[in-house]
Amino acid sequence: MSIHELRPSPSEYSYTFGGRNPLLSVKPGDLIEVSTEDCFGGRVKSPLDIPSQVIDFAELNPVSGPIEVEGAEPGDLLAVHFVSIVPAREYGISCTFPSFGALTATHETAMLHDDLEERVWFYDIDLESWTAGFKAGNSDYRVRMPLDPMHGTIGVAPASGEVRLVVTPNSYGGNMDTPEARVGTTLYLPVNVAGAMLSIGDGHARQGEGEVCGTGIESAMNSVIAVDLIKGAAPSWPRLENDEFIMATGSVRPLEDAYRISQKELINWTSDLTGLDALDAMQLVSQMGLSPAANVCDPNYTMVAKLPKWTLNEAQAYGGVHKKLRSLAAEYKLSH
Amino acid sequence: MSIHELRPSPSEYSYTFGGRNPLLSVKPGDLIEVSTEDCFGGRVKSPLDIPSQVIDFAELNPVSGPIEVEGAEPGDLLAVHFVSIVPAREYGISCTFPSFGALTATHETAMLHDDLEERVWFYDIDLESWTAGFKAGNSDYRVRMPLDPMHGTIGVAPASGEVRLVVTPNSYGGNMDTPEARVGTTLYLPVNVAGAMLSIGDGHARQGEGEVCGTGIESAMNSVIAVDLIKGAAPSWPRLENDEFIMATGSVRPLEDAYRISQKELINWTSDLTGLDALDAMQLVSQMGLSPAANVCDPNYTMVAKLPKWTLNEAQAYGGVHKKLRSLAAEYKLSH
Amino acid sequence: MSIHELRPSPSEYSYTFGGRNPLLSVKPGDLIEVSTEDCFGGRVKSPLDIPSQVIDFAELNPVSGPIEVEGAEPGDLLAVHFVSIVPAREYGISCTFPSFGALTATHETAMLHDDLEERVWFYDIDLESWTAGFKAGNSDYRVRMPLDPMHGTIGVAPASGEVRLVVTPNSYGGNMDTPEARVGTTLYLPVNVAGAMLSIGDGHARQGEGEVCGTGIESAMNSVIAVDLIKGAAPSWPRLENDEFIMATGSVRPLEDAYRISQKELINWTSDLTGLDALDAMQLVSQMGLSPAANVCDPNYTMVAKLPKWTLNEAQAYGGVHKKLRSLAAEYKLSH
Amino acid sequence: MSIHELRPSPSEYSYTFGGRNPLLSVKPGDLIEVSTEDCFGGRVKSPLDIPSQVIDFAELNPVSGPIEVEGAEPGDLLAVHFVSIVPAREYGISCTFPSFGALTATHETAMLHDDLEERVWFYDIDLESWTAGFKAGNSDYRVRMPLDPMHGTIGVAPASGEVRLVVTPNSYGGNMDTPEARVGTTLYLPVNVAGAMLSIGDGHARQGEGEVCGTGIESAMNSVIAVDLIKGAAPSWPRLENDEFIMATGSVRPLEDAYRISQKELINWTSDLTGLDALDAMQLVSQMGLSPAANVCDPNYTMVAKLPKWTLNEAQAYGGVHKKLRSLAAEYKLSH
Repeated sequence: MSIHELRPSPSEYSYTFGGRNPLLSVKPGDLIEVSTEDCFGGRVKSPLDIPSQVIDFAELNPVSGPIEVEGAEPGDLLAVHFVSIVPAREYGISCTFPSFGALTATHETAMLHDDLEERVWFYDIDLESWTAGFKAGNSDYRVRMPLDPMHGTIGVAPASGEVRLVVTPNSYGGNMDTPEARVGTTLYLPVNVAGAMLSIGDGHARQGEGEVCGTGIESAMNSVIAVDLIKGAAPSWPRLENDEFIMATGSVRPLEDAYRISQKELINWTSDLTGLDALDAMQLVSQMGLSPAANVCDPNYTMVAKLPKWTLNEAQAYGGVHKKLRSLAAEYKLSH
Repeated sequence: MSIHELRPSPSEYSYTFGGRNPLLSVKPGDLIEVSTEDCFGGRVKSPLDIPSQVIDFAELNPVSGPIEVEGAEPGDLLAVHFVSIVPAREYGISCTFPSFGALTATHETAMLHDDLEERVWFYDIDLESWTAGFKAGNSDYRVRMPLDPMHGTIGVAPASGEVRLVVTPNSYGGNMDTPEARVGTTLYLPVNVAGAMLSIGDGHARQGEGEVCGTGIESAMNSVIAVDLIKGAAPSWPRLENDEFIMATGSVRPLEDAYRISQKELINWTSDLTGLDALDAMQLVSQMGLSPAANVCDPNYTMVAKLPKWTLNEAQAYGGVHKKLRSLAAEYKLSH
Repeated sequence: MSIHELRPSPSEYSYTFGGRNPLLSVKPGDLIEVSTEDCFGGRVKSPLDIPSQVIDFAELNPVSGPIEVEGAEPGDLLAVHFVSIVPAREYGISCTFPSFGALTATHETAMLHDDLEERVWFYDIDLESWTAGFKAGNSDYRVRMPLDPMHGTIGVAPASGEVRLVVTPNSYGGNMDTPEARVGTTLYLPVNVAGAMLSIGDGHARQGEGEVCGTGIESAMNSVIAVDLIKGAAPSWPRLENDEFIMATGSVRPLEDAYRISQKELINWTSDLTGLDALDAMQLVSQMGLSPAANVCDPNYTMVAKLPKWTLNEAQAYGGVHKKLRSLAAEYKLSH
Repeated sequence: MSIHELRPSPSEYSYTFGGRNPLLSVKPGDLIEVSTEDCFGGRVKSPLDIPSQVIDFAELNPVSGPIEVEGAEPGDLLAVHFVSIVPAREYGISCTFPSFGALTATHETAMLHDDLEERVWFYDIDLESWTAGFKAGNSDYRVRMPLDPMHGTIGVAPASGEVRLVVTPNSYGGNMDTPEARVGTTLYLPVNVAGAMLSIGDGHARQGEGEVCGTGIESAMNSVIAVDLIKGAAPSWPRLENDEFIMATGSVRPLEDAYRISQKELINWTSDLTGLDALDAMQLVSQMGLSPAANVCDPNYTMVAKLPKWTLNEAQAYGGVHKKLRSLAAEYKLSH
């Protein structure tokens, strides 16, 4: 088991997918202990810091990376397993942000309204009880929420030399903001460039489906990921797998097109795993599938399509790489 | 406990919400044993019956009703609790249908493609094992799926004298096609006309979220529902409640607008129940909410927004009507 | 030349397409002198009348009709030629309306913003100079605009017994709000019920493409229309023809689907007129077509697709019915 | 009058906005004679060359540039006037392309249909008669169309270090595919990087609004442009001006959001030019505006919003730079 560390200094964070030299080089089968900043680059330090005043839109979601994966080539599929995701500070932050979110006029859904109030919520994070404390801004209402840490932004370098701000999710991954990117899950990313160039950030202590206000409980994270490589197996869009489900994603606007992509990708995957033709696979997905929103606030919206693995009659995705990474994760946890 | 029966004869089924005289009149607190036809009006009897040849689009989804609820007036909220939903035949049917479904050109998403193949799947339904058997059309693949019966179409008469084909979901309910409309759940429908005029149909032995192919496992049903009335409490859109979640719906196109409506409605409901202002309620929903698709194939798309009831700190929706209907359902089940 | 008059009394106006008995019965080839109320039912009488306070949303756009066309049967195509449209009052009115318009949160595009200011603009209408006077609400800015009168709402009874509020455009016509519905143009409406049941209203002294604020220069009108019938020729959606262009419409959400419908319909029409197959007809439309927005504010959005008639190499739509109605109109004008 | 030449060699063409060193450096007020390749990079040479077989999607729309404009800084506005656009070959090409176009399933609007037939149309281009000859692929139908040359793709380097494939239109311009980008028009592009880095390509001998099949009459061009710089005047999105209209653009999905952006931008511009507040400016645009589609096929859709300049009561955009560039163009034409 080869374990690397990636703890970027403030100046090393990246704000794009593509266009950057690797901070680290690893091999398939390696683990990486990686620290990530929160989406505000750590600059919102108290409820008095107004996010839009302390940070520029283009500097949201700094990512740690890129990490070069040796041997990865265009057409390969990179597997990234979330071994561990632990909030690094005693607080997490959520906020409304001007012209951002599903229930406000935005730069894309342009309107004549004034911006909504920019409000900041500070959550105390208690690793002991594994909870975060919500306290209303405008009343005494309090609820403690279970932590369910995830990475909102994770992806590889785009194809064709594109360089994209991290805030946009797309076929190379990016800011998909799906709560499914949690511990115990393997994310599959199609590789576009030699070395894949994986970057990760935007940890959320937890996040609802759709991220309606535009932010999760934004937290710097100490995470551990394991990577593997499946040669020549790249689908068109990122996929995920956990012990229960295979999952496909689509990130585009409008939301029905994100849904369409995610469903078609899940149908394609199901076909590949079962030998069902497209219509039969669609039928299976139609009756057994789940379809949660991931984000409905980012420049592209993301939908997830899920199918229970037991319906696949023993078929194993990618030769069982998820199981293998689960074992590797277990081994790591035993020794740490 | 007052129990009614509604078993429409073939000529009594309705194809619209609005514009019809009631088949039955009940009081708040009553139960109704109701039989419903499948979405094909029972006319697809074998895999050799091609749906588009045996049934017209305007005759899909016959509904049983309307049921007049005494005392219901515009502005009231009708509560409909699903006590029991049991497939009435030994088979359920799913199919692709020309120009219908999320992954095909449709009348709305017009394209130059030929229609996809119209394929029919017959499921055997076994009430003993509570499963339905999927058999692929183009291979020997088989899976037995757990039953999870629901009603795809349920609603009341629209406002302003409108009469609408049952296939369209809207603010009066209708063909929302959400798997959440299952046993143990209370559906809340805003009342638009005196008597509410509730109709119900389109049973699915089960259905995935989004109904990507356009149909669930379509089944005639023997169902039992209980109704109650909350005076003057009508929200803008249908809501649901089960033991774990409060849920809001939105039915419109594009899908992000269905999402927006469902989220705003859930936020409004949360505000009402907790005293949180809109931004604080949005924050709670942003971190704790679930956002499954219901349908992405009908003339309006439907999204559901869910919030776990434990986050409401003991608040009870509508004076605890869901609990009351749960008890009524339990009582009924004991005596039957 | 048979000329009818339809001048509804206040209580005779209709607020739906479908579900009404005819006020008048005419024959193909007849002319109708029809008076229509403005979209506010005449209740906004000065800039001090706040529209949302003097009129309910369901009472917007009263229409004059229905007019029964003898011999019209489902599957036929009704031709309605605009002979004359003249503002009936010395003023026209435009306004912002709460939750209505393209640049505001609406009931469908639900957001947490407060409504925009509800402002009313009164235009003086001068038939002599054929202009309307714009005066800014918040400054001294003035512009005189040329009149270009049109009917925003015109349609027939829907199929399948549906009854729809007039505010929604659909395949039966309705509130399409296209400036193309002007004098000299023939509108073609697919007939769904015996007698067609034509209704007309919502005159605009002029309107920009898209109707971004949600209203044109709303005016009661004295109009003259001529009707004709083309047996068995109904397309799926309304079409228009003037001396220069054939035009197809689509009314649905999202806007790209309205575009898709309008383009596919124009391609189909072009195919029928030229013998070109679908791809060749699409090619012709791709290079020669115009694609203005009609409305982007109503419950369904409307796009128009236009092709110059000279590209059709002498082909005549519907046996030259437009020319025939033009002659009839000229004859009428000579004698009045 | 300073005149430059830019005639890229095959290896010098660029496929991205951003990430490239300039091929040429010019000053505000200069003219550039620039040759551009067709969207296929010249590789489709006969109707027998199947575009998807001779060219990769990422190599569509090669652009000539970037051209550095001295003194241009982020926040400035670059004015590009189209002095002359002349087809460089005796033919132009249009085609259907797999998974591209408004009436076909695409990578974004994913479906289960097979691709439409990939058909190629060769137009002969006759500069003398200023026409292009359409000949149907599947019949003898012929039409000669007037030339109306334009550039589909023109833009500057994106902000924040992004590098984008040329095929996507966005706030920096790009593949907007609007027929308004024709001779006599000034395009205004907000500058994001020092030198602006202007690139231009994708000439169309003519194109309908919306570009429904996905391509115009694709032509290599010999063009002349004049550039100027307005310091500190950058709006959010590209604008255009000709002798009759000011125009704003929006490029995003869904199409109603492209419409919203274009309308809001036009309203903002109108406000700036007239002193009208936002609601009054919206009112003016609502009654006097035109709203043609530009493209409904590219990764972002583009809408154009137009307002006749006479409604602005003598106000001059950007100190009359359009007039100045018109004079420069006239002077150039006199001397050539």
